[in-house]
Amino acid sequence: MFVHSISHYIPTKVLDNAYFSELTGLSNEELFKKSGIITRRVVNEGENTNTMALEAVANAFEKSPIPANEINLIVGGTYSPYDTVGTLAHIVQEKYKIDKAKVVSVSSACSTFINAMELVQGYFAMNKASKAIVVVSEHNSAYYNEKNPISGHLWGDGAAALIVSKNRISENDLQVIDIYTEGLGHIGKGPEGVYLRPFDGGIQMPDGRNVFIHASKYMSQITKDILEKNGYSLNDLTFLVPHQANIRIIETVANILELKREQTLINITELGNTGCASSAIALSQNTEKYKSGNIMVATVFGGGYSCGAMLLKKI
Amino acid sequence: MFVHSISHYIPTKVLDNAYFSELTGLSNEELFKKSGIITRRVVNEGENTNTMALEAVANAFEKSPIPANEINLIVGGTYSPYDTVGTLAHIVQEKYKIDKAKVVSVSSACSTFINAMELVQGYFAMNKASKAIVVVSEHNSAYYNEKNPISGHLWGDGAAALIVSKNRISENDLQVIDIYTEGLGHIGKGPEGVYLRPFDGGIQMPDGRNVFIHASKYMSQITKDILEKNGYSLNDLTFLVPHQANIRIIETVANILELKREQTLINITELGNTGCASSAIALSQNTEKYKSGNIMVATVFGGGYSCGAMLLKKI
Repeated sequence: MFVHSISHYIPTKVLDNAYFSELTGLSNEELFKKSGIITRRVVNEGENTNTMALEAVANAFEKSPIPANEINLIVGGTYSPYDTVGTLAHIVQEKYKIDKAKVVSVSSACSTFINAMELVQGYFAMNKASKAIVVVSEHNSAYYNEKNPISGHLWGDGAAALIVSKNRISENDLQVIDIYTEGLGHIGKGPEGVYLRPFDGGIQMPDGRNVFIHASKYMSQITKDILEKNGYSLNDLTFLVPHQANIRIIETVANILELKREQTLINITELGNTGCASSAIALSQNTEKYKSGNIMVATVFGGGYSCGAMLLKKI
Repeated sequence: MFVHSISHYIPTKVLDNAYFSELTGLSNEELFKKSGIITRRVVNEGENTNTMALEAVANAFEKSPIPANEINLIVGGTYSPYDTVGTLAHIVQEKYKIDKAKVVSVSSACSTFINAMELVQGYFAMNKASKAIVVVSEHNSAYYNEKNPISGHLWGDGAAALIVSKNRISENDLQVIDIYTEGLGHIGKGPEGVYLRPFDGGIQMPDGRNVFIHASKYMSQITKDILEKNGYSLNDLTFLVPHQANIRIIETVANILELKREQTLINITELGNTGCASSAIALSQNTEKYKSGNIMVATVFGGGYSCGAMLLKKI
């Protein structure tokens, strides 16, 4: 399977550490030290998970060799929905009047992007679809308590979209060599480590330490595993595209994998944790860097817990 | 693929039409006439989407020839989540300490049950999983406005769970012959016909007439289509297992298909609209009726819009 176009949308409103410093009493330095975040973007009035998804998809179609009327699968991914019935996938279908398509939205927390890609792989394997949109979008600021000194300052909003099909179309394609996902509800704090309960406290991360330990371990391990399973080694890896939960987790993973600083694609410093959209946005932001033969691994860890990795090659 | 065990959980608290009559000013007769609902069940304190999912799964495991430690895929389905991060699928994984499993939750509104089954079919086609739990659970009463005279009285809570694998195990199995889903975001009112916006009004059905028209049309059409595509006709159909949104939709579908009254499995009268769990609960409630060679079609329509059908045969 091949990615023909990838794009993203980031809202324009910027919140800096001074904003959260005022709310929580923590200093700018403490906030930066805890997370590596300098700014995060949040929606403007009237924007939400669905509107951001539409913006990202519009941007992806601008560069897509596949027009909307040929799409036969739309997969949405979010844990911060605007509408759980009229989901981001349905809104995309409505906007482009895409008929005869499979349409579903998924959540496996911050690892949802890779689960969504794996779901596409499943539809392609069944020959029930051949040309897909994957759109991931998070509106964390709808659900967070910005005054929470433990996790309130971590979150950002944003979206990304990919146009994917079974066959290679152009030299700009990224080949999806392999996808791996694993549920980790039975590990560590599991479903109590991070949660988003819409009518019971919104998004909370009561035990960041537990998340840190397991995210660092699994994101590095599954990166090694997916490379080795496909005949590659860490020496073949060009770029790591990690989930952006915390710069300290990303640094730990990069250290375990002995990567050079420039090999790890990072956007948390400017965007905060944009949930399941974060690694997809990072993949999109850096498309100009990918050269023929480059190997990329997107590696993610999410609440639940969950993890996932995707091995990509620039054609 | 084969269903080895199917079970359900319905909360004990009963709300009758007199309760909603008092809230809305509509008479018992009007409420019944609009929907065919006499009572609905709602959660007791402390119950939610995740706890109901666990109850349904526990009931399914009691009758399952496959033990929990052999499960390698857990698919949750809900549009009324308790937790979008620690999803119902993750909670099931945690409870039974199921390692090395794919875990994801999906929503395609009231048609989610069939989407979840199709997702399992995809994992089986990829050989990434072979033994699965599908659990669907709806906590409508967390999100509805019970005073809304248009749709407040329609909803109920409940859950169902299925244990599914690639291979036939016993004479109690139901064979899944085919699954069809279709997104209908571009049809009629689409994402505006029904919606659930957790922080913007909860669940609403502002245009029941539009839902009625499209649900009746698609639920009947895809039932015919899935039978014919697989070499059957309506004469071969033993039981129709429809989504339970409104008795008038079910009656219209049954009339279009020229079914006898006893061929249509109904629970909306006692349970209200239990969302994506409704047809799965109906399938579970009637397992004693299925005889060798019987053909069943589960047919669903949901907000978004979306539809889906599943063709089953009792071995």
